[in-house]
Amino acid sequence: MTKQDLFNQIKKKQSFLCVGLDTDLKKIPENLLDSSDPIYEFNKSIINATAKYCVAYKPNLAFYEANGVEGWLSLEKTVAYIKQRFPEIFLIADAKRGDIGNTSEMYASSFFDKLKMDAVTVAPYMGEDSVRPFLMQKEKWVILLALTSNKGSNDFQYMEDANGEALFEKVLKTSKEWATDEEMMYVVGATQDKLFDRVRKIVPNHFLLVPGIGAQGGSLEAVCKVGMNKTCGLLVNSSRAIIYADSSDNFAYSAGEEARKVQLEMADMLNKYL
Amino acid sequence: MTKQDLFNQIKKKQSFLCVGLDTDLKKIPENLLDSSDPIYEFNKSIINATAKYCVAYKPNLAFYEANGVEGWLSLEKTVAYIKQRFPEIFLIADAKRGDIGNTSEMYASSFFDKLKMDAVTVAPYMGEDSVRPFLMQKEKWVILLALTSNKGSNDFQYMEDANGEALFEKVLKTSKEWATDEEMMYVVGATQDKLFDRVRKIVPNHFLLVPGIGAQGGSLEAVCKVGMNKTCGLLVNSSRAIIYADSSDNFAYSAGEEARKVQLEMADMLNKYL
Repeated sequence: MTKQDLFNQIKKKQSFLCVGLDTDLKKIPENLLDSSDPIYEFNKSIINATAKYCVAYKPNLAFYEANGVEGWLSLEKTVAYIKQRFPEIFLIADAKRGDIGNTSEMYASSFFDKLKMDAVTVAPYMGEDSVRPFLMQKEKWVILLALTSNKGSNDFQYMEDANGEALFEKVLKTSKEWATDEEMMYVVGATQDKLFDRVRKIVPNHFLLVPGIGAQGGSLEAVCKVGMNKTCGLLVNSSRAIIYADSSDNFAYSAGEEARKVQLEMADMLNKYL
Repeated sequence: MTKQDLFNQIKKKQSFLCVGLDTDLKKIPENLLDSSDPIYEFNKSIINATAKYCVAYKPNLAFYEANGVEGWLSLEKTVAYIKQRFPEIFLIADAKRGDIGNTSEMYASSFFDKLKMDAVTVAPYMGEDSVRPFLMQKEKWVILLALTSNKGSNDFQYMEDANGEALFEKVLKTSKEWATDEEMMYVVGATQDKLFDRVRKIVPNHFLLVPGIGAQGGSLEAVCKVGMNKTCGLLVNSSRAIIYADSSDNFAYSAGEEARKVQLEMADMLNKYL
């Protein structure tokens, strides 16, 4: 998918919501557990209820791998379902991979060729040759970790060199030479809204994938105010607050309502800041 | 597995070799491709031929994920085979994961509970709360990336703060407070032998997992001279140089011979530097 395609979707749906499919067997309604693939059944219901309010889905690979072969099967079926029913949706493998060249090549093959994802999240620690294999395919995206939403982001991402440049800034500056804003996005957590201006100074035109709204406590308006650019430039993720909005048999309807609420707020933000 | 168990194995086998199971369908002998699970058949033959010369196996998850559900199945079978036939072997999931707490918990469950691995490689970028969920189980290990063997290690790992402390040193110093040397190891590439003294100054007693011998060009003696400690403290990995030593039907015998050669060198090193 191109950047323009994504922006067109955002304008059409008046939404820049990404729904995180962090589907956990322990959290889905009990009556689904009798089906042969409860994770897939849950995802299908969530997708049908939320697709018109979002522009992206982000399955979190950990939640599928935790179920081994069955989990991987649930993931393949979920992705195939989205691709068939909602081909306009941007599909992100939240994998946070990154390894030496020949290994990253295998991961790229796994996510782009085998699973047909549009994007994969990648960790920057191992540098350029760990990222580049994910950049070899047209209209496929790397979403590189820059400034994450968790408490541990303090441990290393703020480390400063003698000139006061932080590691997250060095990651942005160095990596934006590896690819254009048509191939690369960055993860910047919503809980980091005070640092968005430093991010936007380095990457004014890139899309940012923003986790941390909802369960993690970030504010949508604060992020939009400092983070939005002329092609929106934001994909804001919500996982638990949407997919687990309701643990009853009514879960899909409630998830849809929750996604609709976020979409309405986003329409406001687009009207105000785009 | 405890640190003492691992050291006992090393003394008994006179080896600190870890064989990397980076098994690639495109590189295994053609006559295996007719079997229902060529990856598993290849691994089984390699394991039978090399187990007496090594103390650890390290399946690289990317190579299995690239084959989707079938790949995950090959991995589960491979791990079960090792656990059953060679229960003394240390099993490392080379996954380089790291994510927010609830996600890392799922990965930990995947590798420790589902796959029964002894250790998992973890990337440090997201900090403490991304690593801690892997440290909750007794006798299970985190192997944290510190200084990797690839060219891209230059991009960020050497970044220095105002006091001249490099990122890899900060990672070592900070993370060694999270766990003891009975729960944590570090990845330090063999190509970084000039920096081993800086690593050993911070973590004198930890085991280091050392990739980069063989195909990547590191020297075993250089690493042992600066890296070995009183409980050996090194697991040196070789993947391609052993498992693809020979592409003919004789591949398993050749892999065994290659592993034996490395083991003999290692016995020398233990004699010289332990």
